Amino acid sequence: MAIGINSGMSTALLAIEVFGIIAFASSGFIEARRKDMDLIGVFTVAFITAFGGGTLRDILLDRRPLFWVQHQEYTLLIFGLALIVLPLSHHLRSSTAERAIIFVDALGLGLFSAVGASVAQDAQMPIFVCVMMGVITAIFGGVLRDVICNEIPLVFRRGQLYATCAFIGSWVYLILDLADVHQTIALISSIFVTSTMRLLAVRFNLTLPA
Amino acid sequence: MAIGINSGMSTALLAIEVFGIIAFASSGFIEARRKDMDLIGVFTVAFITAFGGGTLRDILLDRRPLFWVQHQEYTLLIFGLALIVLPLSHHLRSSTAERAIIFVDALGLGLFSAVGASVAQDAQMPIFVCVMMGVITAIFGGVLRDVICNEIPLVFRRGQLYATCAFIGSWVYLILDLADVHQTIALISSIFVTSTMRLLAVRFNLTLPA
Amino acid sequence: MAIGINSGMSTALLAIEVFGIIAFASSGFIEARRKDMDLIGVFTVAFITAFGGGTLRDILLDRRPLFWVQHQEYTLLIFGLALIVLPLSHHLRSSTAERAIIFVDALGLGLFSAVGASVAQDAQMPIFVCVMMGVITAIFGGVLRDVICNEIPLVFRRGQLYATCAFIGSWVYLILDLADVHQTIALISSIFVTSTMRLLAVRFNLTLPA
Repeated sequence: MAIGINSGMSTALLAIEVFGIIAFASSGFIEARRKDMDLIGVFTVAFITAFGGGTLRDILLDRRPLFWVQHQEYTLLIFGLALIVLPLSHHLRSSTAERAIIFVDALGLGLFSAVGASVAQDAQMPIFVCVMMGVITAIFGGVLRDVICNEIPLVFRRGQLYATCAFIGSWVYLILDLADVHQTIALISSIFVTSTMRLLAVRFNLTLPA
Repeated sequence: MAIGINSGMSTALLAIEVFGIIAFASSGFIEARRKDMDLIGVFTVAFITAFGGGTLRDILLDRRPLFWVQHQEYTLLIFGLALIVLPLSHHLRSSTAERAIIFVDALGLGLFSAVGASVAQDAQMPIFVCVMMGVITAIFGGVLRDVICNEIPLVFRRGQLYATCAFIGSWVYLILDLADVHQTIALISSIFVTSTMRLLAVRFNLTLPA
Repeated sequence: MAIGINSGMSTALLAIEVFGIIAFASSGFIEARRKDMDLIGVFTVAFITAFGGGTLRDILLDRRPLFWVQHQEYTLLIFGLALIVLPLSHHLRSSTAERAIIFVDALGLGLFSAVGASVAQDAQMPIFVCVMMGVITAIFGGVLRDVICNEIPLVFRRGQLYATCAFIGSWVYLILDLADVHQTIALISSIFVTSTMRLLAVRFNLTLPA
């Protein structure tokens, strides 16, 4: 196992990163399958969705090796996941698929914004940059997924809260951490706030003023 | 204040960077508002337009911290600018908005190509790379703005001179600088050439041969 | 001449890189010309197609100077190439142009996947990452070309093998190299497999299962 910059990542953070990858890769599998892509297309979209946000974060922070170079098991994870998700996605009706994507995407949004904010903090970035990195890590993979699949990115569709949830969730983590709350609790609170807020926004069509 | 790579930037260069950010962020505000985006969308587009070109330049040159990480006041500047530009943009008719965007975009083009060329020169890049960095810094933010807002990027629309202006303006700066002209004068000449040329190109519909 | 990371590149590798640049730049020239872009547009597309994949690879691997910064003669090469390709492309009928693009693109695919895998190996990346870098180097320039020219990227069009060829070709190089075959032979075998496979895929419409 390579000894890298983030070898000191806590177990909680690693677990959250893994779940975030599973969530976003699944959304990629389902979306690409709906678009009737072939196997390589489906894998490409799943990889890009799962690794896009963290890669941009690592490039902006100049962290090397990139997180998926350091943890090669993440790539295997996506191959393994395909064996479970792809057969299932054959049986999804279109409306169910859409709801499934929104759900796993909301989960991934919460998980990755917490990871992103925490990684930036670890790199001793000022607090405002940590928030931006939380948002970028959370939304960029999904933006790439939607662009490739020729959808208007969720984040730019008018109305429903999206980036705002990641923004607020990142602040929750950083403020709790400043207040010396245990990191695991700060992470879980942040994830809970982001994902719940996103799901409520979809359910009740919450919007920002124009 | 962080002591970074570009802490030795001259006051003239800093002032030009600030004005470039104001120009491009304004173009982003107006464009996103025309597209009827919500508040978060409007801010996102303004940030990306103002910071996109310089970020790509910093990544290609491997400069860290990124210019907007080092100067966090730039982010606050965009928030402050919103308080002025957004209420105004409500009263713009569509044709006025279009002309306003072309004008601030031309200004930003001039300001950022001078900054980009000068930053690359500072990093001791060979002269041809300095020119490319001037062009990239000047046009990439606007390309991202247009892509996000679903417009064909100005730079790729057939005919009117655009990247060409940044290209010539970057040469102006670099040649004057080689000729030992005072940096401030070289910068101002470059900005004047680029922006004027771009505005004349729009006004008289100047084109390149196909 | 700058002494950089890849100054130790073998002559064979340099030659392959140069031919890859010629192939992809030509595909960019022809595609942009078909889209009726002006001169600057045509050059921009040719540059981006030829340098896009290698630039992303260098950024992901944190290699500086970028390969086209280190070898400035590559930029001149594209200018020179324009003098030959552009007058020719005027006389191409649309169907001929399409076939010409597919051919040079297949060639570039083979050349760049071999270069990409070999550069990553040189940077002592683990083997799986080397394969990914081969694929990324080979396909990313073409993706950008197609996106700018408003075509659905070849790689994401349903059915025909594309990224798969680069994937298999990268493995060919890496396995032959592990087996201590002379590097030049490993490179040529990899290029031959990738390009031939891609051309056969187009000719016989070979597809992957969905």
